[in-house]
Amino acid sequence: MTVTAAKGFRAAGVAAGLKTTGAPDVALVVNDGPSLAAAGVFTSNRVQAAPVQWSRQVVTGGQLQAVILNSGGANACTGAEGFQNTHKTAERVAELLELNAGEVAVCSTGLIGVQLPMDKLVPGVDAAAAALTADGGEAAAIAIKTTDTVHKVAVSGGDGWVVGGMAKGAGMLAPGLATMLVVLTTDADVPAEQLDAALRAATHTTFDRIDSDGCMSTNDTVLLLASGASGVAPAAAEFAEAVRVVCDDLARQLIGDAEGAGKDIAIEVEGAANEADALEVARSIARNNLFKCAIHGEDPNWGRVLSAIGTTGAEFDADRLDVAINGVWVCKGGAVGEDRDLVDMGGREVRVTARLNAGDAAVTVWTNDLTAEYVHENSAYSS
Amino acid sequence: MTVTAAKGFRAAGVAAGLKTTGAPDVALVVNDGPSLAAAGVFTSNRVQAAPVQWSRQVVTGGQLQAVILNSGGANACTGAEGFQNTHKTAERVAELLELNAGEVAVCSTGLIGVQLPMDKLVPGVDAAAAALTADGGEAAAIAIKTTDTVHKVAVSGGDGWVVGGMAKGAGMLAPGLATMLVVLTTDADVPAEQLDAALRAATHTTFDRIDSDGCMSTNDTVLLLASGASGVAPAAAEFAEAVRVVCDDLARQLIGDAEGAGKDIAIEVEGAANEADALEVARSIARNNLFKCAIHGEDPNWGRVLSAIGTTGAEFDADRLDVAINGVWVCKGGAVGEDRDLVDMGGREVRVTARLNAGDAAVTVWTNDLTAEYVHENSAYSS
Repeated sequence: MTVTAAKGFRAAGVAAGLKTTGAPDVALVVNDGPSLAAAGVFTSNRVQAAPVQWSRQVVTGGQLQAVILNSGGANACTGAEGFQNTHKTAERVAELLELNAGEVAVCSTGLIGVQLPMDKLVPGVDAAAAALTADGGEAAAIAIKTTDTVHKVAVSGGDGWVVGGMAKGAGMLAPGLATMLVVLTTDADVPAEQLDAALRAATHTTFDRIDSDGCMSTNDTVLLLASGASGVAPAAAEFAEAVRVVCDDLARQLIGDAEGAGKDIAIEVEGAANEADALEVARSIARNNLFKCAIHGEDPNWGRVLSAIGTTGAEFDADRLDVAINGVWVCKGGAVGEDRDLVDMGGREVRVTARLNAGDAAVTVWTNDLTAEYVHENSAYSS
Repeated sequence: MTVTAAKGFRAAGVAAGLKTTGAPDVALVVNDGPSLAAAGVFTSNRVQAAPVQWSRQVVTGGQLQAVILNSGGANACTGAEGFQNTHKTAERVAELLELNAGEVAVCSTGLIGVQLPMDKLVPGVDAAAAALTADGGEAAAIAIKTTDTVHKVAVSGGDGWVVGGMAKGAGMLAPGLATMLVVLTTDADVPAEQLDAALRAATHTTFDRIDSDGCMSTNDTVLLLASGASGVAPAAAEFAEAVRVVCDDLARQLIGDAEGAGKDIAIEVEGAANEADALEVARSIARNNLFKCAIHGEDPNWGRVLSAIGTTGAEFDADRLDVAINGVWVCKGGAVGEDRDLVDMGGREVRVTARLNAGDAAVTVWTNDLTAEYVHENSAYSS
């Protein structure tokens, strides 16, 4: 499982004291090759953390030798000092492992607007480098948790090669390009351009289609590193599908562990004129607080779905909208449909299907309900 | 105060049994003239309730003789039967008061997707017509409440004439053109075109600038009726200002009584390149759940303000953003500013100022915090 499932990678996770709880907070992933090919996608938030600015630049070369990650501080909105701290962190990794700092990506997560305590982080980097092992993937996955209640790992692959990955993310969870910290590794022998194509295609229908709370992060990063250590060069489509499977698995784990959530909600939009319309409608429903409260209360309140659809610019006729909740078509032709008392919403997973009857495009976006626990978790302390 | 402050109007509010609580739920406002000039603005939600479809058509003639309003049911997403019920309601008012049904506006508010019980509503209309008095404005304001904890009325005016109004609204409170039910009356002698201009100008900077929960209603309606009974024809600017004052007063009352809210938050965006940019940024902050939770927790978490700004297309440089909370500039130049411990957020009202440093445009949008009470109120039962 996770980032050391693929041959050619070592990883570690250690506690450096960035978190006041003493929990692990520094992770390191190293690619020992022979290939160093890599690709990355980053938040489309225009306010970007220092590590995002750094890593975005670093990955343009198509090679990464290592990724250093910390929880306990986002290093976002920290000015020139924050960027220097990111640079110093990459330099320290390069120095310890005799790498090129220009091929070391940096990821940070935690509170925005606070400088990282470098007097703790630098010794943490030293400890992580010393702890690197070929089965350190799980320790790394644990060290990047913030408000996550569980660590998230996944694996897929083909004959003689694997794709593995880890992810963190529980709040400020709405995709621009990506929506959290994710590191994927593979021992397949795949050039950087193909990695990039596979990664962008996979994130487009996985991480980009989860939207827990509508709040896009300043730090979202998804990296994919290939060691080539398996010696296998899979067909492009097969490789892309394995990347998609791992991304989809991790994305669903993120939704399943979202802050304070009690329900995982699939918003299925069907019959849209095109994909853009379908996505706009799905996201409008997913971000509607009244809808999210209704699902929390297990109330099949389809009127809130229709009022969310009505705020979009998508092609539809209000008198031809159908809505099903867990398979019961409670709204037909824009008005009352089947008996709402037939809807059973007792489970964790709820499926809301909105049929626009304007074409053939369909998408599914995953979101969560809105709960008192979400409010508590995000008001009781800074995060 | 309220809709009978102006001469030439009668009003009533009665209980017809639409609400299970037995509280008043039918209101009637009648213009006895001599003028019947009127204007209206309506929700821009594309899913529109039957009474919105009816009243929008009726007001195009520039005249209204009466407005019949009910709480206890929105008559939205109710198909052809719902539209017939709206029509029947207007016809009943016309029959009782010997008016033209084509000059009777209808407003409804309550649960979406349920047919109005006409066997209760029609006798309610009869009772309201029988109860009409020249001081019935307060009873009318009380009868249009849904989850409102208080009824909302306001008055302004000039020498010999007044503008008065009533409003309801506590949830699904985000403006398209309007955002709730509002009836304004004046005894000034003002033609319909001037009423329309004054009303659109006023709603643009008042109701359109409150955004409690980002959820746009299917039923929003603001009507302005002029009786001319004062015999005074005020200057256009003076009249428009009185309309604006009443709208602003009612809008602030709506925010102050929003479902479950503990804080009224003024989002002041300054230094924007243009008004559209300023509004986009203000609304992005106002709708950010993490920001709203932070204010609830009295946490001056300015990082959440910056990440909300970063999702907009407005003109700004991330390194030149300043943010003040209750006057303390906690973020300067996109990074840490004054000590966040200096911020006192103990009061009901919180002012968040975002300076884009990209121009001279400024707007203020009012919103609320996100609370466990909001979740409870909107998940515990259908509304």
